[in-house]
Amino acid sequence: MNAPHAIPRQPLPDALLAALKERFGPALTTTPAVLEHHGKDESWHSIEAPDAVVYPATTDEVAEIVTLCAAHRVPIVPFGAGTSLEGHVLAISGGICVDMTRMNRVLAVHAEDLDATVEAGVTRKQLNRELAATGLFFPIDPGADATLAGMAATRASGTNAVRYGTMRESVLGMKAVLADGSVVQTAGRARKSSAGYDLTRLLVGSEGTLGIITELTVRLYPQPEAVSAATCAFTSVDAAVRTVIQTIQLGVPIARCELLDALTIGAVNRHSKLGLREAPMLFCEFHGTAAGVAEQAQIVQEIARELGGMDFQWTTLQEERTRLWQARHDAYPACLKLRPGNRAVATDVCVPISRLAECIAATNEDIARASMPIALFGHIGDGNFHLVILIDPENPKDIEEAQALNERVVMRALEMDGTCTGEHGIGFGKMDFLEAELGSAVLAMRAIKRALDPHNIMNPGKVVAID
Amino acid sequence: MNAPHAIPRQPLPDALLAALKERFGPALTTTPAVLEHHGKDESWHSIEAPDAVVYPATTDEVAEIVTLCAAHRVPIVPFGAGTSLEGHVLAISGGICVDMTRMNRVLAVHAEDLDATVEAGVTRKQLNRELAATGLFFPIDPGADATLAGMAATRASGTNAVRYGTMRESVLGMKAVLADGSVVQTAGRARKSSAGYDLTRLLVGSEGTLGIITELTVRLYPQPEAVSAATCAFTSVDAAVRTVIQTIQLGVPIARCELLDALTIGAVNRHSKLGLREAPMLFCEFHGTAAGVAEQAQIVQEIARELGGMDFQWTTLQEERTRLWQARHDAYPACLKLRPGNRAVATDVCVPISRLAECIAATNEDIARASMPIALFGHIGDGNFHLVILIDPENPKDIEEAQALNERVVMRALEMDGTCTGEHGIGFGKMDFLEAELGSAVLAMRAIKRALDPHNIMNPGKVVAID
Repeated sequence: MNAPHAIPRQPLPDALLAALKERFGPALTTTPAVLEHHGKDESWHSIEAPDAVVYPATTDEVAEIVTLCAAHRVPIVPFGAGTSLEGHVLAISGGICVDMTRMNRVLAVHAEDLDATVEAGVTRKQLNRELAATGLFFPIDPGADATLAGMAATRASGTNAVRYGTMRESVLGMKAVLADGSVVQTAGRARKSSAGYDLTRLLVGSEGTLGIITELTVRLYPQPEAVSAATCAFTSVDAAVRTVIQTIQLGVPIARCELLDALTIGAVNRHSKLGLREAPMLFCEFHGTAAGVAEQAQIVQEIARELGGMDFQWTTLQEERTRLWQARHDAYPACLKLRPGNRAVATDVCVPISRLAECIAATNEDIARASMPIALFGHIGDGNFHLVILIDPENPKDIEEAQALNERVVMRALEMDGTCTGEHGIGFGKMDFLEAELGSAVLAMRAIKRALDPHNIMNPGKVVAID
Repeated sequence: MNAPHAIPRQPLPDALLAALKERFGPALTTTPAVLEHHGKDESWHSIEAPDAVVYPATTDEVAEIVTLCAAHRVPIVPFGAGTSLEGHVLAISGGICVDMTRMNRVLAVHAEDLDATVEAGVTRKQLNRELAATGLFFPIDPGADATLAGMAATRASGTNAVRYGTMRESVLGMKAVLADGSVVQTAGRARKSSAGYDLTRLLVGSEGTLGIITELTVRLYPQPEAVSAATCAFTSVDAAVRTVIQTIQLGVPIARCELLDALTIGAVNRHSKLGLREAPMLFCEFHGTAAGVAEQAQIVQEIARELGGMDFQWTTLQEERTRLWQARHDAYPACLKLRPGNRAVATDVCVPISRLAECIAATNEDIARASMPIALFGHIGDGNFHLVILIDPENPKDIEEAQALNERVVMRALEMDGTCTGEHGIGFGKMDFLEAELGSAVLAMRAIKRALDPHNIMNPGKVVAID
């Protein structure tokens, strides 16, 4: 057990199991393999299985499940694609896992309003497939094909955030079931509103600890008339970061801007059969009119050249772009292959971009001293980068070393006015870092948690610990 | 008294007044004229003066004031520029007004990070003056020269929101004093973060009812290389709205996009000495490279022409642009002159843009039946529009008619999946509409209010009523 704030497991009350079985029939399961599947995410943490998994088909069914669990004070863990990275979905206190993947309908696409209303279990790729004919797209793209409610719950982002924002900016409103079984709609479909406390943004990033998101309305964007992608190698991370700072300062509306270090490029070359120079590289993308993207690419190329950029290449061909971005999205599995059989401690910090080169340089010194391979890559336009620290999860020394490195990297980011997680979230893996980052503000978070979930049944032991 | 949820005024405890006087000396005042000035905003509501006004100079002083008031259970109303429109700053339950305008320093400008940290009382124009030499600007621009903390507290926006977002998207983090006198920092300066509940967004729009914002870090943007402004008249509001929908669908990154109806154009012509055709008009602005803005203006002109747009004019001259936007920002005082001596019931709704033309058409029928002049204008790219309903505040019939119209307009917006306020906020003027809009979600807001302000001392009787 790695979760420091888990409440002790209690046996599942027979009466609750009987009531759920009666109500949900085959949509309720206690098959060990299914429980095990729902007891893990993509983190290195060991399995913590729930006592049962239920697959609701509607918001009302979610409300029934929560009402039943609330009556028995039994923990509830919502589950999407299971791609979280800090143990968010592990049933560390047992209880009922609510698998949202059967709620997978796109309910409405409002093309004129540039929004879509979807059920919780719709994934980002599914939504984009269903949007293909509309000329619109949904830009938020964590590497995994996560569910949209899961992405909202962890405040996910990805490669497009520098231009299109994160789930924080993308969710217009949502329907959610709160801890007492009540159903709330947090907002309508207006682009902006000053009506009351921002429950939408409170639930975005709450990781299932304040309620279960069952439907959400997300912002869409017109597919750009023209898209070009560019790659450029540098002799140093610093030169790559300087290129990005100057690009953003000039107001170039860059859509994607990714940094991959030499080790990651090597892993990506092998995994995705690319032949890129094994040096720090930028992957960029420009969206706009044909003239606009040509102009953007030219400005960035000039900046990069002055800073020693090499091998600048750009393309507007869809096939080449898709290959490039698939390779970027596969960086995580590519890095996992650096030491086959290993798991990864994947950490993620975000700092003001003016500190990014310094932060990465110091981190590279840590990496040079480490006993295991560690890849570094990230969303440089936002100051957000990841480490993939490869460990043998059976080896306590590996775990200890990885955790010590994680702590060093996080504390360094905090000293630079950054955050302990740019997009992965807190789960149970970063609760102590949240305290280190925000101090007394965590007391206010606890007060909110207690107010909305007085019996601590909603994904307990995650984000903030309450007694 | 127009405030339906005010708690009864209590005499100010002598001990509190003595303690504040001792601590704050001349920065504490009970001069009647000053109290009266702090008992009103720009709404039509009659004055509700506080019992004393104190002018803190630091966050610690704000914390001392709150701690003292909390010990005596005395209401606290934060005050900025006094430009709110729904009675937000009226001391409807008496108590201490905390005037934040002495905290007016720009603490830091981080040019590379595109952010600035300011004290609560810095106004938007002051910030832009101090930024002038940096090549950066702060885009959020409600008509008034409001303080940034006031703008954050009401989740303000303005003409640039269609491109740059609202205060919701603009605040990276803030320092605030909570109801128990504790000081919290809600976030650092990272562009994005998944660390815990989004207290920043919870305080944005909380109107002083959850805490007093004392410092905030806001996003800045590079001044665009080129800017052009355009005006175009239409034979109908519908044609203007269609023009905007098609523009946005094409992905034109329009920076400003304002609709003014014929009555407003007439008022603006007289107030700002312009000679515009008295017809529904769009005022637009484009930001980008020189080639980019020319391309954007050409696309919009073509769309407008196909929809019957007339008198399309565009300019890149700073002087003409400034004149145009000052005229737009002066629309509210210009409309007040339509019936001299009157006050205005200024209401503000926001709907999905696909419903905007229909919503405005129905509203225009209401306006045609009304007994007073009513101007209509707004931020059409967001689906947000305002009515300025001119009333004699001494005439109960005027008030009754204006309130009935306000209710019709709001309820129509809600039926169209919109919101009862796009940018003005709830204050005490729209509390019942908030309930109509969000129903059971208001119960969750009340639970949060009770958790963070158990004695209901923070701007009581606003946003949500608690017992």
